Amino acid sequence: MDMERLKKQMEFIVEIDKVKNIFRQTYLADRGRKENDAEHSWHLALMAVLLKEYSSEEVDLSRVVPMVLVHDLVEIDAGDTYAYDAAGVSTQKERENQAADRIFGMLPADQGEWLRNLWDEFEAYETPDAKFAHLLDNCQPLLLNDASNGLSWEEHQVKKSQIYRRNQRVPETSGVIWEYMQSLIEKHVKLGHIIDDMSE
Amino acid sequence: MDMERLKKQMEFIVEIDKVKNIFRQTYLADRGRKENDAEHSWHLALMAVLLKEYSSEEVDLSRVVPMVLVHDLVEIDAGDTYAYDAAGVSTQKERENQAADRIFGMLPADQGEWLRNLWDEFEAYETPDAKFAHLLDNCQPLLLNDASNGLSWEEHQVKKSQIYRRNQRVPETSGVIWEYMQSLIEKHVKLGHIIDDMSE
Repeated sequence: MDMERLKKQMEFIVEIDKVKNIFRQTYLADRGRKENDAEHSWHLALMAVLLKEYSSEEVDLSRVVPMVLVHDLVEIDAGDTYAYDAAGVSTQKERENQAADRIFGMLPADQGEWLRNLWDEFEAYETPDAKFAHLLDNCQPLLLNDASNGLSWEEHQVKKSQIYRRNQRVPETSGVIWEYMQSLIEKHVKLGHIIDDMSE
Repeated sequence: MDMERLKKQMEFIVEIDKVKNIFRQTYLADRGRKENDAEHSWHLALMAVLLKEYSSEEVDLSRVVPMVLVHDLVEIDAGDTYAYDAAGVSTQKERENQAADRIFGMLPADQGEWLRNLWDEFEAYETPDAKFAHLLDNCQPLLLNDASNGLSWEEHQVKKSQIYRRNQRVPETSGVIWEYMQSLIEKHVKLGHIIDDMSE
């Protein structure tokens, strides 16, 4: 048996423990603290399994699940970039590519390349699997923002137009999930947690 | 489209956010704090994907991954029971069965039954998929205990015989992973982080 191979896998598994300390802008449902990347990715993986039926195109969970499990690993080196932080977003791609080289490069070549390709596919946002993964990645913080009574939206003074722009490709993947998400957005516009910059 | 079905799924997804506040006895690799169930389950899901090749029996990731993603959800009601807490372990099964009824019962019947069956299968520890899930569930805290320099073992004054008893079924699932785990146990026995009650 190839102990060198197992050792690389185990070292990668310990290295990625670091995402448990990378905190996002979204609060947990109970408003107690912000969520970290490992918790977020766990949530997406289970959502992928439960919500697959709503994707308008056939998706392959044996690709979507690993994709969402690793989609934030680059933040170990590159940090979390808040979706509505324009300055951070401008340097994000370069920082994240370097991180992907290092982190996926720790694995045996076959597994490292496989996960790196899944991450590149997620970033490219073109295939049905990547589109479904993005839908989950957009929907989950919205559920938590709703449960936490719009805490993160208020904190960042998020505008309705920003949320619609960020979610503009959700409807092509699932009309029914978009309908659900939209009902939450409208609810929090009404409650004043989201700034309404789209009414006449 | 059945909005009632989606609503149940979404309510389940928000309910299980609570496992992010259920803390285990294992410390993160950086020793900064203890790990919670969501983070632990994320780690197991990715380990399942990476370490499948070492299982002595064929395993099906489309069952193992959901199994490990939900294996600790019952702790939302039943709390975490430390593996080496004998009193807690004695009432654990009853508390966890009631929790499973309630939590998986929130989902549409087909999905709730499917996940409940996977959880029962995990608990029964008989099938190749369940055995592999248990191997991961045993191996992951060992990796973190090693990375954190034995912090949790020292805190609980864990004995070598307890660790061997808890892991006694690991070798039947993977000799090579057990070999790796054993090397870590022996290292920390030598370092005095695990009490050596097995030498002559």
